[in-house]
Amino acid sequence: MQFELSKEFLETIELAIQNSNLEWLKDHVLSLHDADIVSILDELAFEPASFLYHLLGEEIQGDVLMELDEDLRETLIKSFSNKEIAEQVEQLDSDDAADLMNELSDKQVEEVILQISDEETAEYLVDLLNYDADTAGGLMKKEFILARLDWPVKKCVIELRRQAEDVEKIFTIYVIDENEKLVGFLSLKRLLFANATELIENLYQDKNVISVKTNEDNEEVAKIMEKYDLVAVPVVDLQNKLVGRITIDDVVDIIKEEADKDFQMASGISENIESDDSVWKISRARIPWLVIGLMGGVFGAQVISGFESGISQVPALAFFIPLITAMGGNVGVQSSAIVVQSLARGTDKFSSILAKIWKETLVALLNGLLLSLLVYGLAVFFDSVTLGLVVSFSLFTVIVFGGIFGTLIPLLLNKYKIDPALATGPFITTLNDVLGLFIYLTIGVLMYGI
Amino acid sequence: MQFELSKEFLETIELAIQNSNLEWLKDHVLSLHDADIVSILDELAFEPASFLYHLLGEEIQGDVLMELDEDLRETLIKSFSNKEIAEQVEQLDSDDAADLMNELSDKQVEEVILQISDEETAEYLVDLLNYDADTAGGLMKKEFILARLDWPVKKCVIELRRQAEDVEKIFTIYVIDENEKLVGFLSLKRLLFANATELIENLYQDKNVISVKTNEDNEEVAKIMEKYDLVAVPVVDLQNKLVGRITIDDVVDIIKEEADKDFQMASGISENIESDDSVWKISRARIPWLVIGLMGGVFGAQVISGFESGISQVPALAFFIPLITAMGGNVGVQSSAIVVQSLARGTDKFSSILAKIWKETLVALLNGLLLSLLVYGLAVFFDSVTLGLVVSFSLFTVIVFGGIFGTLIPLLLNKYKIDPALATGPFITTLNDVLGLFIYLTIGVLMYGI
Repeated sequence: MQFELSKEFLETIELAIQNSNLEWLKDHVLSLHDADIVSILDELAFEPASFLYHLLGEEIQGDVLMELDEDLRETLIKSFSNKEIAEQVEQLDSDDAADLMNELSDKQVEEVILQISDEETAEYLVDLLNYDADTAGGLMKKEFILARLDWPVKKCVIELRRQAEDVEKIFTIYVIDENEKLVGFLSLKRLLFANATELIENLYQDKNVISVKTNEDNEEVAKIMEKYDLVAVPVVDLQNKLVGRITIDDVVDIIKEEADKDFQMASGISENIESDDSVWKISRARIPWLVIGLMGGVFGAQVISGFESGISQVPALAFFIPLITAMGGNVGVQSSAIVVQSLARGTDKFSSILAKIWKETLVALLNGLLLSLLVYGLAVFFDSVTLGLVVSFSLFTVIVFGGIFGTLIPLLLNKYKIDPALATGPFITTLNDVLGLFIYLTIGVLMYGI
Repeated sequence: MQFELSKEFLETIELAIQNSNLEWLKDHVLSLHDADIVSILDELAFEPASFLYHLLGEEIQGDVLMELDEDLRETLIKSFSNKEIAEQVEQLDSDDAADLMNELSDKQVEEVILQISDEETAEYLVDLLNYDADTAGGLMKKEFILARLDWPVKKCVIELRRQAEDVEKIFTIYVIDENEKLVGFLSLKRLLFANATELIENLYQDKNVISVKTNEDNEEVAKIMEKYDLVAVPVVDLQNKLVGRITIDDVVDIIKEEADKDFQMASGISENIESDDSVWKISRARIPWLVIGLMGGVFGAQVISGFESGISQVPALAFFIPLITAMGGNVGVQSSAIVVQSLARGTDKFSSILAKIWKETLVALLNGLLLSLLVYGLAVFFDSVTLGLVVSFSLFTVIVFGGIFGTLIPLLLNKYKIDPALATGPFITTLNDVLGLFIYLTIGVLMYGI
């Protein structure tokens, strides 16, 4: 049922573009779903992509443009005149139009707005451009359907017909009072089956009306829509006047982006990159954490050099250095990951920091005991009872400390409004490496009596 | 606007339950949005939660039940009689009802179905229970609105009124032919504004109808709905007969779960856990990766012990062991994370494995060069030019190998249908630890001539 882009089909398309075989392109490419055209354009080089893009019907060009891979979209936009951009903007929903404008320079924004012929579109845009892109205001669209409390069903249906031209998907009709304040909502289903003379007042639902403020944070909007299972949420200003609505498709994008960001942060990647980005961009995104890891390694070298004479007397002490550092890192990453997720989900919020650390300590004691016993046997088998005691005792200590730091650091970051996901990954690994080395070698020197 | 649960309010509720203050509970708790009642129940102990739950109106009990934290839901269900479960099932949408039934034993499922009085509900359930929970069939609901090609608008509206009783949210009307095959769709908006005698045939949209098969994988369904920006997708059987629909709210849950799973896997946690799970469950989820890390550490000890005489002659070699292992791990995690995300997104699929490894090698060469220069200076300052050369040369090699393995392993896992996210985290770290040690100490022994 679904279209699946194959390498062969892509090559055929490239050939057809080369030969300007418009007939074939029209039958086999332009007739596809917008989303499939996007996936084709994303795989083409700029020249053929631009050629194909300009063959698209005007009414879908804008939608396709906004779904393209960032790099291609930027290059395409640069190749457009202000007049062309204005034409695309007029075809878009207001939220997408604002997103497009946000990719332009301030000066170009002004010029494009002057070129927009539809007054309402220009007005919507100017309004939306006021909001921060990371807030509900920056996410909302101005197209929604509303009805007033004092309208009869008949008038509402007529109004609906007029308003609906601008609204791609109707989910809910928002009901306002005479001061434009949001008071409730009405499902299309309810309206459809109501008596023509009935007043909206007697039909609408005013209980538990969920809305968000224009300055609400994007991620908070996503959480609210998820919690209340909403496909659209109305946006109100500080006076509770209805100013826009946010639909679930935009929120799905936010949820995905947020998850990607956390995953990349936990993996030590500092910018949002994709595997088809340039070598240079990928390198740059990865270097900051590597430098931090390097510094941690140099600190570690400093710690070990303090025990140089001990190691030259008992070189076996060096054997288990990687085990200790790796385990400290692993435990730290595990415990910080649990804290980061619980903070992101908003669960477990009534237990105090102390209670959380206490719980993590119990987990660490349990796992530490088990793993210490295991490593004791292995190290004795490997070298001697003394080394077995040193390794198992220090592993136990490192696991407990690693767990406590792994819990504490993201909680502290969160308290000071820093993204706690920063703590997962290289940061906590590096810290626990250095700490683990110090614990291990101190215990070693003490127990070997050197 | 939104309800925010405070500790004080929670305590007041607990007190009211203790004193059976039904009046207060009715005014202050039962009047809240379902989702808020869920968040309160999740924070209560079982006894008060169960008490409060039974105060809820019958028509919302089921919905609340299905949103509860897993542990509480399980305990509640265990406390119900089969008759009570059947009553809740009848209130639920068919997809939620099937999810509820999936938490029961086979024997109990049969008993509950016998207790269901509404025949259609029982029939829907028996049908849905046939599908694997991880497929479109296991995700879909049987409640949807359909119209036949040969109906006039008028008949369609009448039918709609009849069907709509079962359908909470109407998004789209699915259009079938006389063989029940899905042929297209019709928006409610379009129907609303059409002439009463017009045939559906002349109104419906048959271009680019997106549907999924019952046996389609859950994650694939999520990808399709995301790609095509759908709020609902029709589900068809192998003969293209319409059998159900999947709505976006269920898909949002899948996207979240998938992201959580990847994040936890990358952090070395093997079961889906939350911070309020028991100490025992959290320990168990974390131990497998720790044991693998431990084994890697023992391997590492084995490698180092092979160079024991070298280390006792030049103990400074031991200084940079943690730096080398940490950097190999960091690079491996970074490169595998990029591969895992690109596989999950389905981007960059036309570049071959060789091309990917070549690109990663370039990134590694670039970063390796920069970091080696940095560490050379530090190690010379720290100890000697020889150590500087050993550390920088082996760091360079480790970064290149770490990057290549980090890219290759998730690609290989994916090729053999194993979740590539397994590769990120402890697995690749452990492998690169051992590899890095071997490279470092070999180069060290060679260059020091020991």
